[in-house]
Amino acid sequence: MNFFLKQIPERTQKPREYGFTMAMDKGLSLRETEDILESSADYIDIVKLGWATSYVYPKLKEKLQLYKEAGIPTYLGGTLFEAFVVRNQFDDFRKLLDDLEMQFTEVSDGSIQLPHDQKCEFISTLSKQVTVLSEVGSKDAEKIIPPYKWIELMQKELDAGAWKVIGEARESGNVGLFRSTGEVRSGLVEEILTKIPFEKIIWEAPQKAQQVWFIKLIGANVNLGNIAPNEVIPLETIRLGLRGDTFNHFLSETV
Amino acid sequence: MNFFLKQIPERTQKPREYGFTMAMDKGLSLRETEDILESSADYIDIVKLGWATSYVYPKLKEKLQLYKEAGIPTYLGGTLFEAFVVRNQFDDFRKLLDDLEMQFTEVSDGSIQLPHDQKCEFISTLSKQVTVLSEVGSKDAEKIIPPYKWIELMQKELDAGAWKVIGEARESGNVGLFRSTGEVRSGLVEEILTKIPFEKIIWEAPQKAQQVWFIKLIGANVNLGNIAPNEVIPLETIRLGLRGDTFNHFLSETV
Amino acid sequence: MNFFLKQIPERTQKPREYGFTMAMDKGLSLRETEDILESSADYIDIVKLGWATSYVYPKLKEKLQLYKEAGIPTYLGGTLFEAFVVRNQFDDFRKLLDDLEMQFTEVSDGSIQLPHDQKCEFISTLSKQVTVLSEVGSKDAEKIIPPYKWIELMQKELDAGAWKVIGEARESGNVGLFRSTGEVRSGLVEEILTKIPFEKIIWEAPQKAQQVWFIKLIGANVNLGNIAPNEVIPLETIRLGLRGDTFNHFLSETV
Repeated sequence: MNFFLKQIPERTQKPREYGFTMAMDKGLSLRETEDILESSADYIDIVKLGWATSYVYPKLKEKLQLYKEAGIPTYLGGTLFEAFVVRNQFDDFRKLLDDLEMQFTEVSDGSIQLPHDQKCEFISTLSKQVTVLSEVGSKDAEKIIPPYKWIELMQKELDAGAWKVIGEARESGNVGLFRSTGEVRSGLVEEILTKIPFEKIIWEAPQKAQQVWFIKLIGANVNLGNIAPNEVIPLETIRLGLRGDTFNHFLSETV
Repeated sequence: MNFFLKQIPERTQKPREYGFTMAMDKGLSLRETEDILESSADYIDIVKLGWATSYVYPKLKEKLQLYKEAGIPTYLGGTLFEAFVVRNQFDDFRKLLDDLEMQFTEVSDGSIQLPHDQKCEFISTLSKQVTVLSEVGSKDAEKIIPPYKWIELMQKELDAGAWKVIGEARESGNVGLFRSTGEVRSGLVEEILTKIPFEKIIWEAPQKAQQVWFIKLIGANVNLGNIAPNEVIPLETIRLGLRGDTFNHFLSETV
Repeated sequence: MNFFLKQIPERTQKPREYGFTMAMDKGLSLRETEDILESSADYIDIVKLGWATSYVYPKLKEKLQLYKEAGIPTYLGGTLFEAFVVRNQFDDFRKLLDDLEMQFTEVSDGSIQLPHDQKCEFISTLSKQVTVLSEVGSKDAEKIIPPYKWIELMQKELDAGAWKVIGEARESGNVGLFRSTGEVRSGLVEEILTKIPFEKIIWEAPQKAQQVWFIKLIGANVNLGNIAPNEVIPLETIRLGLRGDTFNHFLSETV
């Protein structure tokens, strides 16, 4: 840090098992990628190339290389996995992961109907090839999954070989974990945490109020995802109690 | 594209007569302009320098040159045209277009009162000098134009020499085609489409939900405008059915 | 300007005593900083490194140097001052200002309880070291300060040595001067202006509608703050009556 302040919450260090930030890249140019690495590399633990933007982005391999050189793993958004699966191109997807030398992948069913046994099989198969993040929750705001079901799905996906499970929210933060207004489904989150360790969950939380809510509930070292690149530094200050939103929360904790 | 996926909607190719994306530049630096060209040039068909930002932007000619070298036409936002007209400086405006070697211009009356005959005369005069895009709709949320009138205005402006007509929405997407909440005035759009071919209309649709609505109604190759530079790649994935919002829409169409 | 238009409101010139724009940098990379300087340096009078982002930003001194070379003063957000004060590290804060060669600082109490006499003492002490901007208003949406109290606080802080006083709004523009919806507390602002000269006040106004409101009330040369870097050029056009929102307002004034 640039100077010394007392009573700052302790943060985990890279490579972080928890307390990590997943940033979403939805089409940054190579130079913009370098920029975000310059300002924020210390605070980004993994980058998702949002949904299927990797299909249209013109310099995909060069971009992956930039992140690799910075020591930041990347993965392709779950919607791309689903786009291959729904077209019966799962083998092509596996070849793509090899071709791009990916170390991580996401398995999700936010836009497709996938029997859960089959989803778990995909997780199991892919986990022999790469590290798997699996996502629970629908992109459809009207598909409400009750808490006990979230827990059951998450546990089975971890058992099937997922490294961590992701709670769905989309880029906008208004489905899955959240109501259409962006408000957290707090009962859902609290019930999940009675059964699944917080270290195993990445909460998609693109809106500031959502990040604040999770940090107040779980602490500075909660795993948060779908963070816009230019919000990574702001998020880090919220984790450290150095923005108005958590300023007093951490002070009282650390005093 | 970076890899092969079946059943992807067919997109028109550059130079596109329809299916095109108009991006809005409201003051990008030269390097930011290069960045957007690197990531998104294939998906941008024309760039508008938003409203009168060209008046204050310090390196205007250099920026126009960058777009020119990338083969992407540009035009100055309609508010600038109106600013000249309302000051009785129309001749200065024509000289400016020459001085800047513009190939396109916009004619609008979103902020001024302009008898429609006179607007059509401006279109007619300017269409001898450059390619004209004319815009219908007020920037004033309280001026509601009924559908039959939109159609009449659009048709007369096309007859006067406009290459295409633009449906007003502003940068924010909450006037003209849209209610103050951003909701599409769907009856208006559907009625317009009974009389004016979709190829001749550019719908300003800065919000994602608006883009999705038009793509679902008209297809992957609808003309959309006022797209923020960093939303061009996301928009392209929506056109291709590769984002949650249109994922199933195009699958059922292409199967 | 790039070309001539009649009847444009006259703007103050740098170094501006009023009519100035305070931009907020919440973690721009060095190259992004250069970019914003290229496009907008003429229209930025001072830059705030938002709240305590300076604590985590990795190349702080290099960034400060870039602004310095462009002739644009900078200061560290008030939350950082508060973070030092609440930890009894005020002397460390003063040393930090020296170490970073800061010429300006902010004194605020948006997140801490600070007796006003003590706040004024901080202002007085710091004003012997640097130029002080002091901020009035809480970051807590539920702490409503009545107008007469705003005036009293502002006057005392100016008397204590503040160069200008800032009206609180946060990055989001939904506290202090504004209701939680972003709507201006217009009665408050108008009452303040009966007692405090507009030249002495910087209104934080991150949202466009807020900027428009202040420009219509006070004129092109109102002091506005918390402007996102990519909104500086748009704001300048609003000041000049060259965007729809103020297009007719200034025309009628200047005719």
